[in-house]
Amino acid sequence: MSVPPAQNSQPGSPVDLPLEIFGLKSDLICPGEDILLKIRAAFEQANLLPQTNDILVIAESALATSENRVVLLDDIQPSVAALEYEKLYQIDAREAELVISESDVIFGGVFGVLLTLKDGMLCPNAGIDNSNAPEGCVILYPENPTKSARKIAEFVLKEFGVHVGVIIADSRTQPLRLGCTGVAIGAAGFLATVDKRGETDLFGRPLAVTRVAVADNLASAAEAVMGESNESTPFALIRNANAVFDSEAFGITTISPEECMYWGVLKKSGSV
Amino acid sequence: MSVPPAQNSQPGSPVDLPLEIFGLKSDLICPGEDILLKIRAAFEQANLLPQTNDILVIAESALATSENRVVLLDDIQPSVAALEYEKLYQIDAREAELVISESDVIFGGVFGVLLTLKDGMLCPNAGIDNSNAPEGCVILYPENPTKSARKIAEFVLKEFGVHVGVIIADSRTQPLRLGCTGVAIGAAGFLATVDKRGETDLFGRPLAVTRVAVADNLASAAEAVMGESNESTPFALIRNANAVFDSEAFGITTISPEECMYWGVLKKSGSV
Repeated sequence: MSVPPAQNSQPGSPVDLPLEIFGLKSDLICPGEDILLKIRAAFEQANLLPQTNDILVIAESALATSENRVVLLDDIQPSVAALEYEKLYQIDAREAELVISESDVIFGGVFGVLLTLKDGMLCPNAGIDNSNAPEGCVILYPENPTKSARKIAEFVLKEFGVHVGVIIADSRTQPLRLGCTGVAIGAAGFLATVDKRGETDLFGRPLAVTRVAVADNLASAAEAVMGESNESTPFALIRNANAVFDSEAFGITTISPEECMYWGVLKKSGSV
Repeated sequence: MSVPPAQNSQPGSPVDLPLEIFGLKSDLICPGEDILLKIRAAFEQANLLPQTNDILVIAESALATSENRVVLLDDIQPSVAALEYEKLYQIDAREAELVISESDVIFGGVFGVLLTLKDGMLCPNAGIDNSNAPEGCVILYPENPTKSARKIAEFVLKEFGVHVGVIIADSRTQPLRLGCTGVAIGAAGFLATVDKRGETDLFGRPLAVTRVAVADNLASAAEAVMGESNESTPFALIRNANAVFDSEAFGITTISPEECMYWGVLKKSGSV
């Protein structure tokens, strides 16, 4: 069932409500603990109720932990390939073994990190995280972030009676930029990208190549309140987002290397 | 002079104010028109006053237009190199000529676009924009986005008596992602990146590599209300951002290709 778009679909007019982002704290999420209960508790603690067309953002590490995607490195037996990566890039061979099994393509590496393609996304170490993991452990990416996003949206509908969008968010560096920004690795309940190509610019000319990565923009926005270290804010609620809501919509649209301008340039120069 | 950090420097607790983003509309900005007057008019139209530690976001195309960075393509005489780019990548030779003069490095191209290094940033066509430009014209990047950001912060202080942060924002695709997200190309009045390396994760372990690109996250957040086409919302005001404010701080910290993980991998494979 489709729900109507947010009321401020024409952003920026004086009467528009501002976009709002609430950080939602949680106590520590332990491996296997139900993320849905943690979300409910976070709403209670913040004394906040979700509304129709809010977007709930979930940190991927919190989701992955709840999904038992925590691996004790001592349990991993590295392959010959993994030992080779350790030698080449000083990455722990056991972690390299996990990167091999978690990624679709490994493009290569530098000190401490392998650059991979994971579910169509360019991703250091296949998303495997050393931070915020128990001692001796690493956290893999959630099994299926978009499936989990849909499950969370269904839970919010059942629990609070409202349709919300859900984003599973990671943070990641970008080429030649300092610092991490938010990126959406799963989404449900709204269009993750919006195609503006039929629309016109300020001078009435058709826009050439403009698609907007709404989910990535909102993941970055949420990152601004969620933090990276010990803030214990694994969730955020975004209100009055200028998104196209559709309870049946799900997924992040990726593009193939063949469609990518950056990749195209590098390919011509013989790299990838 | 330094100003104290925003009150919600511990984000996410139940008593925290939400981060808020107001879109600020403007009438059309014509080449050479004073951006400062447009900003003042936008605040008036929105019936909004900036407060200390707000962050004002300015679309780079609006700033560049006000700075007279609009070029009539017919005025450009393409060089031999530009004609070669036209042949190779079907990019208008006059535009290619501008890309050559505006960029530090050209890495190569694909259909319709050259990939460049511009002021230390990886950037399609050196930031030259076809959209939202008058007929037959393109818009170059602002001359010095951070210098303009400082000037705008000074104007807001003089006009409204409050210290704000300022971001000059562009939107850009990322490798293997569909759609554009916001990126900061100039900043003043707050730390564009925050170094978290001394801090600890949820389990008390030191964070390994975590710098947060606060300015990029907030540029993306603003993008969510500013739009890409004819929304006429070239400004946004962000309130209650969890940023480190310092009226003397300015600039975007870039990293060299040598420091970049992505570049490192591609370099080893012989590409860049």
